[in-house]
Parts: sequence; C-alpha cells; structure tokens
Amino acid sequence: MSRVVEFETIDVRFPTSALLDGSDAMNPDPDYSAAYVRVGTDAADGLEGHAFVFTIGRGNDVEVAAITALKSYLLGRDVEGILADLGGLWHELVYDSQLRWLGPEKGVMHMAIGAVVNAFWDLKAKRAGMPLWQLLARLTPEELVDLVDFRYLSDALTREEALGILRAAEPGRAEREALLLAEGYPAYTTTPGWLGYSDEKLERLSREAVAEGFQQIKLKVGGDRADDLRRLAIAREAVGPGIRIAIDANQRWDRDEAIEWIRELEQFDLAWVEEPTNPDDVLAHAAIAKAVSPIPIATGEHGGGRVMFKQFLQADALQVLQIDATRVAGVNENIAILLLAAKFGVRVCPHAGGVGLCEAVQHLSMFDLIAVSGTLDGRMIEFVDHLHEHFVTPIDVHSGRYWAPTAPGAGTEMLRSSIDEYTRG
Amino acid sequence: MSRVVEFETIDVRFPTSALLDGSDAMNPDPDYSAAYVRVGTDAADGLEGHAFVFTIGRGNDVEVAAITALKSYLLGRDVEGILADLGGLWHELVYDSQLRWLGPEKGVMHMAIGAVVNAFWDLKAKRAGMPLWQLLARLTPEELVDLVDFRYLSDALTREEALGILRAAEPGRAEREALLLAEGYPAYTTTPGWLGYSDEKLERLSREAVAEGFQQIKLKVGGDRADDLRRLAIAREAVGPGIRIAIDANQRWDRDEAIEWIRELEQFDLAWVEEPTNPDDVLAHAAIAKAVSPIPIATGEHGGGRVMFKQFLQADALQVLQIDATRVAGVNENIAILLLAAKFGVRVCPHAGGVGLCEAVQHLSMFDLIAVSGTLDGRMIEFVDHLHEHFVTPIDVHSGRYWAPTAPGAGTEMLRSSIDEYTRG
Repeated sequence: MSRVVEFETIDVRFPTSALLDGSDAMNPDPDYSAAYVRVGTDAADGLEGHAFVFTIGRGNDVEVAAITALKSYLLGRDVEGILADLGGLWHELVYDSQLRWLGPEKGVMHMAIGAVVNAFWDLKAKRAGMPLWQLLARLTPEELVDLVDFRYLSDALTREEALGILRAAEPGRAEREALLLAEGYPAYTTTPGWLGYSDEKLERLSREAVAEGFQQIKLKVGGDRADDLRRLAIAREAVGPGIRIAIDANQRWDRDEAIEWIRELEQFDLAWVEEPTNPDDVLAHAAIAKAVSPIPIATGEHGGGRVMFKQFLQADALQVLQIDATRVAGVNENIAILLLAAKFGVRVCPHAGGVGLCEAVQHLSMFDLIAVSGTLDGRMIEFVDHLHEHFVTPIDVHSGRYWAPTAPGAGTEMLRSSIDEYTRG
Repeated sequence: MSRVVEFETIDVRFPTSALLDGSDAMNPDPDYSAAYVRVGTDAADGLEGHAFVFTIGRGNDVEVAAITALKSYLLGRDVEGILADLGGLWHELVYDSQLRWLGPEKGVMHMAIGAVVNAFWDLKAKRAGMPLWQLLARLTPEELVDLVDFRYLSDALTREEALGILRAAEPGRAEREALLLAEGYPAYTTTPGWLGYSDEKLERLSREAVAEGFQQIKLKVGGDRADDLRRLAIAREAVGPGIRIAIDANQRWDRDEAIEWIRELEQFDLAWVEEPTNPDDVLAHAAIAKAVSPIPIATGEHGGGRVMFKQFLQADALQVLQIDATRVAGVNENIAILLLAAKFGVRVCPHAGGVGLCEAVQHLSMFDLIAVSGTLDGRMIEFVDHLHEHFVTPIDVHSGRYWAPTAPGAGTEMLRSSIDEYTRG
C-alpha cells in the first residue's frame, strides 16, 4: 500500500507568440502553456502521475491555482484505493458542492479536476505497464461504465445503453488492436494553415503535407473574406483535388454571417467547417449545419462538458465531434462523450496541437477504435508539429498517421529539463 | 485626472455551514464567501470601487486568483478614461485572447472580469453621487447599447432592436422612478425554505413571511420526494391559498425525472419550478417546460453568459429569467440579458441571497423597471435575510418590498471590519 506524498503544480509557458505558430482569427498570438501537475507516491516503484491543462498563456497561473486548490483532497491518500476507483475520484471532485459553484462542470475548476484525474490515469497506466489506450481498451464494459457519470445524460444515453454499445464492440477488440499496431491511426495536419503565415509558407507547407502522406489539411479562416478566398485557392491548387481541406473559423462569426461566409467558401470543397460561432451556441450551430448541409460542422475543443456535447448531438448541431484531452474533466468525461458520439453515430476527430494535446488525445481515439465505436470510418486525429520535443514519450506521426505508443502511461509527462527551462518565474 | 493606484483582492469567507442557512439539495453546507476586490485611485475625493464574486466556500481562493490576474491590466490606468467607456473595459477584458481560452465567456475567469467591471461601476456611481440603478436609468439609449456586446446575439437581438426597446421605454422614466421611490420593488423570500431546517422552523418562518408582507415564498426541493410533499403541505397550510409558493430543485433531476417529480408536486399550486436540471441544458429545460406547462420554469443563477440566456429564450426553455449579479461579466452583460428578456417578453426575477447578492442585484431590477422593460408585472427580487449587516449600505426590505437605495454606489462595499474579521488567513 502506498500514499500520495507529492502534489507539485507548475506554471509552464512556451513563448510561441514570437513565431505566430498557432495564430488564428480569435487567438492572434498564443503562448502555448501548461498548468502542470505531478503526483508522487511513496511506493518503491518510483512511478509518478503527470498531467496538465493546456492554456494559451495569460491565465495559466489561474489554472495552476485551481489545480493547487485540489492538493488537500489528494495528499496523503491511499494510492491503490484511488486507482481502483477512478470513477469515484471523478465523482468526489466534480460533486464537491462548494467547488461545483464555480462552474458547474465547466471552465477553470472543471479543467483542473481533469488534470488531477488524468495524472492518476497516467500513474495507473504506468503501474500496469501499458499505454493508456491499451489499458482502457482492455477494461470490461462494466468497468468502463463505472467510470462514467450518467447524471444529466439519461434523456440521451443510459448506463444500460452504454453497456450495450461496449458489449457490441467486444468481438473484434483483438483484431482492431492488431490493425492499429500494424497500420496506425489516420492524422490530418493543421501545420500549413495558421493565419499568421505568409502565402508562400502556406503553399510550401501544404505541398509538404501531401508529400508526407496526409490526406487532409486544415486552414484557419474568418479574419478577412478576401484573404480566405485567396488562401483557400492557394491551398487547393497546392494539394490538388484529391486531398481534403477543412477550415476553422475559431468562433469568429454570428449565426447568419457564418452561413453567408461558408457559402462563399464552399466552392473549395470543404471537408468540414470548424467552430463557426460561439462554442456554447447549440441552436446557432444547428441552424448553420442545416443551412450549409451537406458540409459538416465540427466543434468541441471548447465544449465545457458532457451536457453540452449531449445537446449538440441531440440537435444535430455537429457532424464531426472534436474531443479535447484537457478541456473536460479528464479521461472519464471523454469516455462519456465517446459513448454519446457512438450512440448518435457521429464520428470523433479530436482537437490536438497546443502543447501535449496530440500526446494525450491519441490514446482516446485509439481506445475508441478498439472498444467503443469500433471503426476508423471518417475518423482522424489533428496533428500539429509543435513542442513535441518537450515530452518524455512524444508522438510518432509519419506517413500521415499516428503510430500507437507502446510506452506505459498516458503520454502526458513532460521532460523535467523542459519544465525547468519554461517554468514561469 | 486620476490613476488606479490600488487593486486589493481579498478572500472573505463566512462560516455559514455551521447553521445550515443556505442548505439545498445540491449545496448541503455552503460557506458563503466573497472573492473581493477594492480599487483605489489617487483622486482627491478618496472614493473607491468595491465589488466581489459570490462563491460558497472552497474555491474562493481560485476566484481571488482570477481577479488578481487582472491587476496588471488596471493598475496605473487613467480612471476617467475607464469610467467614460465601461463598454470598452468589458470588451478589452472579455476579448483578451489568452484569457478567453479559459472560458470562453463563462466560469471563473468570466466572473472575475465581472467583479472588476462592477468595481468600476461602483466607483462611477459614487463619483456621480447616485445609486447605480439611478445612474443607469439616466443614461441615454445610445449610451446603454454602447455598454453591450451584441456579438453572438444578432440572431435574437441586434443593436438597432435594443435601441428600439430602450427608446420605447423613455417616455415614463420619471414616473416610474417616482413610483419606485414611493412604493418600492416587490420581493419574495427564500428564508423559510432551506432543506436543512426542521418542519417547525419551516412552518414558523412561512407564517412570519406572510405576516411581514411577502406575497411569495420559495422552498428547496429535490432531496427526497416524501419530504418535499410533506414540507410543501406544511408550507401551503401555513401561508394559505393566496400566497404564491415557488420551488427550487437546484439541478437535482434528469429531464424525465424532473417532469415526473414536478407532476407530483403541482397539487400545491406552484408559482415556478427553479433549476430542475443541469443549468446548461437548454434542450432539457425546453422539454420540461413544455411538459409541465403552464407551471413556469425558472433558471439563470448559473447561466454562464448572454449566449446561454439567448438560447433559453429562443427555445422557450424558461419562463422566469433569473439574473445573478456576480455570475456573468458584470453590469454590462446583465444589461444585455435584460434587453434579451425584454425582446422575448419574459419576466426577470433575480437570484439573490448569498452574501451581497441582494445588495447588488436590486440595482439591476430597478434600472430595468425604469429604462428597459418598464413594468413590474410578475417581477420580484429574491430576498434572503443573511449577512446584510456586513455591508456599508445594506438593503432595506420591509413590507414585502425592496426599498430603493439612495446612497451613491452599487451597494457592493463591505464594512472593513467585516472584511478583516472574515478574511481567510
């Protein structure tokens, strides 16, 4: 038996704004940052749990304060007890009635809970000697539904229905795991499309993306309509007709403006339109999706929690669901969202990039393939080539695919040298 | 010309959990708290701006950290410039692209921005020598719409429509101000109905409420169905058939459970059912409202921002809109919400109680009466008799009504002695 003896929180910031990597219409100069947590135990194995909330700079200190506020809940606790019931840990923290007031179930405090839950998932996977995707994919349907809080979901998905989905996917788990290990998981790249890049850089990176094997690229739009038309023409010319191009407006538009703007850009054969308007606006997304059909609407990176995703699915307000590894309350809530997507038959194409989001979210898609949706149809994980060098087990993306990690853990541990170099102080 | 020279943030907590004041089905033991901010200037008048975010205990430190993160935006700034364009201050803080990632526009960071904006409204009203309600009610329609961000609202309310609403209410402003000063604003009381109170205390406080002149009381429900039936019977017997009884489930139910539970309680002639389920669930509220019609559904105290309120109105998911003084980004955003309610013809009955929420929110309802909706029809402000003694200008509620404050300011300044006594240390 071991105890939690360390709970370190760190404000890690990378000065990415200097290069305009990550620039889009709402986020012109992000400094990719991590509100980081490290959980240590007194076990002889020396294993630690590492996780973080991704932010884009200012406010990372607030997120660190929120994670730090959870320290007293964990320090001194029995590690085996926590790891044996991570659904219980989720429930304990999310339903703390006083903390709940700060959301409820969304925003700074909810993401902080996610980081803590994910740190224990990292530790659990390391102890199991498996990458997180594999650990999850080998849980029974009953163990998986015990991780999920079905409160507020019963009008769309009950525990029994979730069990049914998971049981239906049990046959073939081993074959799909073998397929994943042999062939990887499809990726698409956002690397060419940042708004801050010149036309020349856009064209060069678009061509390189195709040469590297990507079947889809994504461009940021929504700043200026003439710019969007010109940049889409450059990208379409560069990649040719056979490669998919998605666009991402990063919440720039109001409802009717979105519809009008998308209709002008649809000539470039759009794979999807991402975040056309405010990410909480279920009704506006539903109206936009209906108006521009069959162009799919994608959203989710700012989806505060499972209740918002439930509504987007119920209202047919998204056709591509983009989970994010650190926006909701951790692995458990993302399992709930994967189950909702499977129930509604909607494909999941995770948001990634930032710092460490690729490393973290790949595990969820790979788990989904093996144990939930059971399919790769239309699915792919975002890839952005930033900051991977700071992780102990960086992603392996080549030939347009994510190659399944085999190292134990959740992929969320940053190199100590990077943490120390980029700690804000 | 003066500058901002002080920006003090304080973690103020009252140990209310010891008495079970404020206990409900989701919040069994709140410690009413304020993440408090005090803005000082170098002007000779010595006036300060005071404001806060209300929380219920743990996590108040996180909210203080979020307000503190805004200090560098304000310190040293030109006070007159800020006060002349509080719409500009709102926009500057809400659209800070890096901070925005933490919401966007909801939760801990959004509430922190609200506290800062409200502190400057307090200062502006003190400088003008007027209570906030009067200051607001004397602004022109053009000045008022300049305070509001219409982004994401245009599918429900444009700037021009808002101007039309405000211009239509201009005739009669003086008469309604005189009426307000002579007759006060209707109140209802939640004091009898906390879940932690005994049946005897519920009965006694219900009778006292009627004797004090209240026309409506509110009971917490949703913990246990048999308890709810018994407590409602006691309360109905105590107040008689002529007094309205509202119930508040504090988010306890799922959609179908809510419908079923409300149907069992409707025999007691319910004035409204408050927070039946998750406060972000527009679609579930719409379904519940349709199923239990004509019983009105009330919600809003956890409404993260104007985009959520817009959707609740568009979907006919609430019939009583409950603004909260410290949940959204301050006075400006509440003006947007009042305008939305006026556009949809829905009555506004603010959430209050906690610590200082009565003091703060009364100004918004009084402003609404004079300059926005122009009516008292069906409207009333929640009253809870807790912690008013800690404020410099406590509310004046008697004869079942709020009596309009006349002291300059927003009502949000706490006594220094109370701050010092209850600062967490």
